[in-house]
Amino acid sequence: LGALQAFNAYEPRYVSLDTDDDGPVIESLETALKQYRPKFTYLAPTFQNPTGRTISLDRRQRIAELAQRYNALIVEDDPYCALRYRGNAVPPLKTMAPDHVVYISTLSKVFAPGLRIGFCLAPEPIHRWLVIAKQGVDLHTSTYNQALAAEYLTGNYLESHLPNIIGLYRARQKAMFDALEAFMPEGVTWTRPEGGMFLWVQGPKGLDIDRVYEEGLRRNVAFVPGKYFYANNGQGLETMRLNFTMFDEGTINRAVETLSEVLAENI
Amino acid sequence: LGALQAFNAYEPRYVSLDTDDDGPVIESLETALKQYRPKFTYLAPTFQNPTGRTISLDRRQRIAELAQRYNALIVEDDPYCALRYRGNAVPPLKTMAPDHVVYISTLSKVFAPGLRIGFCLAPEPIHRWLVIAKQGVDLHTSTYNQALAAEYLTGNYLESHLPNIIGLYRARQKAMFDALEAFMPEGVTWTRPEGGMFLWVQGPKGLDIDRVYEEGLRRNVAFVPGKYFYANNGQGLETMRLNFTMFDEGTINRAVETLSEVLAENI
Repeated sequence: LGALQAFNAYEPRYVSLDTDDDGPVIESLETALKQYRPKFTYLAPTFQNPTGRTISLDRRQRIAELAQRYNALIVEDDPYCALRYRGNAVPPLKTMAPDHVVYISTLSKVFAPGLRIGFCLAPEPIHRWLVIAKQGVDLHTSTYNQALAAEYLTGNYLESHLPNIIGLYRARQKAMFDALEAFMPEGVTWTRPEGGMFLWVQGPKGLDIDRVYEEGLRRNVAFVPGKYFYANNGQGLETMRLNFTMFDEGTINRAVETLSEVLAENI
Repeated sequence: LGALQAFNAYEPRYVSLDTDDDGPVIESLETALKQYRPKFTYLAPTFQNPTGRTISLDRRQRIAELAQRYNALIVEDDPYCALRYRGNAVPPLKTMAPDHVVYISTLSKVFAPGLRIGFCLAPEPIHRWLVIAKQGVDLHTSTYNQALAAEYLTGNYLESHLPNIIGLYRARQKAMFDALEAFMPEGVTWTRPEGGMFLWVQGPKGLDIDRVYEEGLRRNVAFVPGKYFYANNGQGLETMRLNFTMFDEGTINRAVETLSEVLAENI
């Protein structure tokens, strides 16, 4: 959603990729690269917002090969990779096709969003333009906040802080999985990400998600309707993004129970 | 220069206005508004960067009338207004045509540039779009820095700090005026702003400013060639922007003497 908002000002033409549980479908990506020669392909390969999905190792290797074969540029948005609660890390696309990937990430999910500190690794010819573009947008990121971040990183505060967040979020994610299992009606499915902040709930065809959203709000339960995460209209109409990091386990349990009731009344 | 860099990403068509010591020439502005119906007119009415010029009260009133008559939008960029060393304040355009002016300013020149805190006053229909655009660009300005700025402003630190900066800069500006008067060769003129951070030096027609710039650098004196402040090429070729806030009076005196020597050798 944030990426779409950032891109929209430049009035781009979007080409959407077909996806499955392992990431973008390779044939769909190859067709897009051949047919449209896009300026870049935007991917969030690890614990993607909104679905929580992670692109598999095998799929990543094939994406990297395609990027090289078609001399295509990939923007790899990777804000959540440090928030892994189970399973093994998968290497970033950047490591597989370093000359074809702009890797971007942030301290917002692991240190503090209020500092607005992000960073990127770009191939040299693109790096030069990014510096010029950054100057045009805001001259530079707050030097004061950069100094704070440098202190935080070099002082090993991140290493000692991360286990705390991970322990906290892991328990909350588990509470959400348990509650979904316990309360959700027939015909509703969800992703089972190994990390990140979100999971993705898919309702049955024809579900009126706006009604579910409004009725949920009336009972103090909010989610983001999945349709807002699509570049083009009319997709993801029966989907919801749930966040599991904001509230404690008891609250999550009650919220999922309430949402399940609302869904049951609307299926 | 910064404004041009910010606008360039959107590939605008620029229409330049004729100006004199009182600001944009009214006929030039009216012709531009009639002929091109620009999306907005960008002005820095007080101690403009780069010239240091201030639009006169009478000229401001006529600009405000034109904006209203042609239902035109003005972006009033006003970062330097608090840095007045002589004379009387002139009211902002925003006060004269509030529905037609987006007023923008910053704490960078009076508190700390490293915080990256700016602010704006916009008519309601535009304000709504600015919020959306801001979200697209960076979600929001650092909340931490906003809290620092709020503390600074509500604690009256700005009021007590401003006289210090003003006293410091006033003396430095005077040192630069005195040195220009003492050392500059025939045929070189400059503006006499009542505030701000810059003044504008105009050399004789045909002056090779790039050579002056390179020779100046070799003798440790830098300025910004004026041509970079124009939207279209081939203008301001014999001009220089001098900053008088960075160094102490002795350094300013020596720098202007050196620059005057370089100019004399190139005229």
